[in-house]
Amino acid sequence: METETLAQKIVDGDRRALSRAITLVESRRADHRAQAAALLQQLAQAGRQAFRIGLSGTPGVGKSTFIESFGMMLTEQGLRVAVLAVDPSSTRTGGSILGDKTRMPLLARAPGAYIRPSPSQSQLGGIARRSREAVALCEAAGFDVVLIETVGVGQSETVVSEISDLFLLLLAPAGGDELQGVKRGIMERADLILVNKADGALKPAAMRTCADYAGALRLLRKRARDPEGFPKAITVSALENAGLETAWDEMQALVGWRREAGHYDRIRSEQARFWFGEEVREGLLSALDNGAAKARMAELAAQVVAGELTPELAAQTMLTGLGVVPR
Amino acid sequence: METETLAQKIVDGDRRALSRAITLVESRRADHRAQAAALLQQLAQAGRQAFRIGLSGTPGVGKSTFIESFGMMLTEQGLRVAVLAVDPSSTRTGGSILGDKTRMPLLARAPGAYIRPSPSQSQLGGIARRSREAVALCEAAGFDVVLIETVGVGQSETVVSEISDLFLLLLAPAGGDELQGVKRGIMERADLILVNKADGALKPAAMRTCADYAGALRLLRKRARDPEGFPKAITVSALENAGLETAWDEMQALVGWRREAGHYDRIRSEQARFWFGEEVREGLLSALDNGAAKARMAELAAQVVAGELTPELAAQTMLTGLGVVPR
Repeated sequence: METETLAQKIVDGDRRALSRAITLVESRRADHRAQAAALLQQLAQAGRQAFRIGLSGTPGVGKSTFIESFGMMLTEQGLRVAVLAVDPSSTRTGGSILGDKTRMPLLARAPGAYIRPSPSQSQLGGIARRSREAVALCEAAGFDVVLIETVGVGQSETVVSEISDLFLLLLAPAGGDELQGVKRGIMERADLILVNKADGALKPAAMRTCADYAGALRLLRKRARDPEGFPKAITVSALENAGLETAWDEMQALVGWRREAGHYDRIRSEQARFWFGEEVREGLLSALDNGAAKARMAELAAQVVAGELTPELAAQTMLTGLGVVPR
Repeated sequence: METETLAQKIVDGDRRALSRAITLVESRRADHRAQAAALLQQLAQAGRQAFRIGLSGTPGVGKSTFIESFGMMLTEQGLRVAVLAVDPSSTRTGGSILGDKTRMPLLARAPGAYIRPSPSQSQLGGIARRSREAVALCEAAGFDVVLIETVGVGQSETVVSEISDLFLLLLAPAGGDELQGVKRGIMERADLILVNKADGALKPAAMRTCADYAGALRLLRKRARDPEGFPKAITVSALENAGLETAWDEMQALVGWRREAGHYDRIRSEQARFWFGEEVREGLLSALDNGAAKARMAELAAQVVAGELTPELAAQTMLTGLGVVPR
């Protein structure tokens, strides 16, 4: 399909065109990359913005149920909701971790919702760029809310929080004071912590966990761009649809405040600048991506670990081999 | 001086030779860099290892007093102690923040101690490499303990913790539950948190702060390489020399445990591998270091922020200009 036709169909709300475009941005083929770039540049002119919500949570916290319940609530309010997955895992462990429509059966059938299954393993690579571009496509397609979910592995929170207007951390009630391995930096990125499963027998534990995290959040430095009280921790029950409206109110309050204070536009500009820098750096570092370079790096690293070469001499050897004049 | 003579003098414990060598590794001149590399390769053969202790703490927590008291305690036990500063600030704010001998008058005169003043602004650049090399020089000079301090700005904790066997975080008592802006990731790097100023009127506050941090540490994931109870938070008073022996015992216990478990050598090997990779990546990214590249980046970033260019197109433009074929 011609790029202009595809762009028009996306702007008109054609779901199949949107899916096709996302597949296009997921491709690493040079001609696909070129078409994707042209398409995105064209769609940028539509100037549409969605409320981008990043969502992180380890398996077992009830992420699918939350997205299903939260997404249904939004669509019932007449909002159009897209759900995207950022899956940094190179191998799919444990079946349908991400993006599969079967884990959100109601939302998958809702007319106002669009769920993009996570890309297959072979299409992975350039996670950040692919995710960013998929979000831009959903915005151009006129969605009001784009939910970007991740399982919280490796660098995926950085990716998700740097393409989101707001970052949610979903947690399950913990037993005792040992909280579920929340990784370095994830908590500091969270704008709102939702302790899920605040229902039935787990409700007291959810309340305690919520209080623990509220305390931990107070220990973290408050961001100047946030109003009093944020970041915040609240309990929800995706199963019983409890607390979801409060959660949505909090999200709107936070982003509304940031909009009025001018932080919203500034954050988006900073994100664009960040990604520009990242793309340039990634481009430079891609000299290490090919098989020969990887083999040479491994060889030299082994000599460094064995104490035969200092890190400096090994690096000089590598750089000279790449044609870079060492400083 | 010839490299071999200089190396011999350093190994023999000549302080002036050591200072001269540190000045050499701080230099960016090409001939100096070459001599530094040769010197380090030669000294590596001595195979000497010191107990490398990284220390981070914001201004005002009593870092100078702590280093003075702690260092004096060690030298009184017959240990030789070197103190190095990692100062990432391009401008010196507030006078003698780092490395100046005047802020540790007793230690500066102690025969078993060596304090290296922080490098002047003009010599800055390549902080990680310079710091790593200065530590290696102190090890070759036969110091038992190398204390590497930082004010906790930017990436300096990463640098310090990746060249240390153990990472200390020094804190002051906080009022209420609002703790002193501990930055993202610093707490997770700490092996031992020392709440200083546990003396006089501040003692109760120090105890409370210590309990708060002990609680926060429990929320963080425990590293597999650490024994039960670590990371740990304890109170000290550098002013009254209280708790310093306990702190030293804890440090020795932790590193002793890691040695026996085989983690000590593995951590050092991992660090060497890490720095090898960093040096290679820095070498590649140094294409962005010159004035023309910086100007072009700023120009393109402005267009990205203004919404005139997508991050991707701007990056492609930049990379093409640098002679890199975009992926």
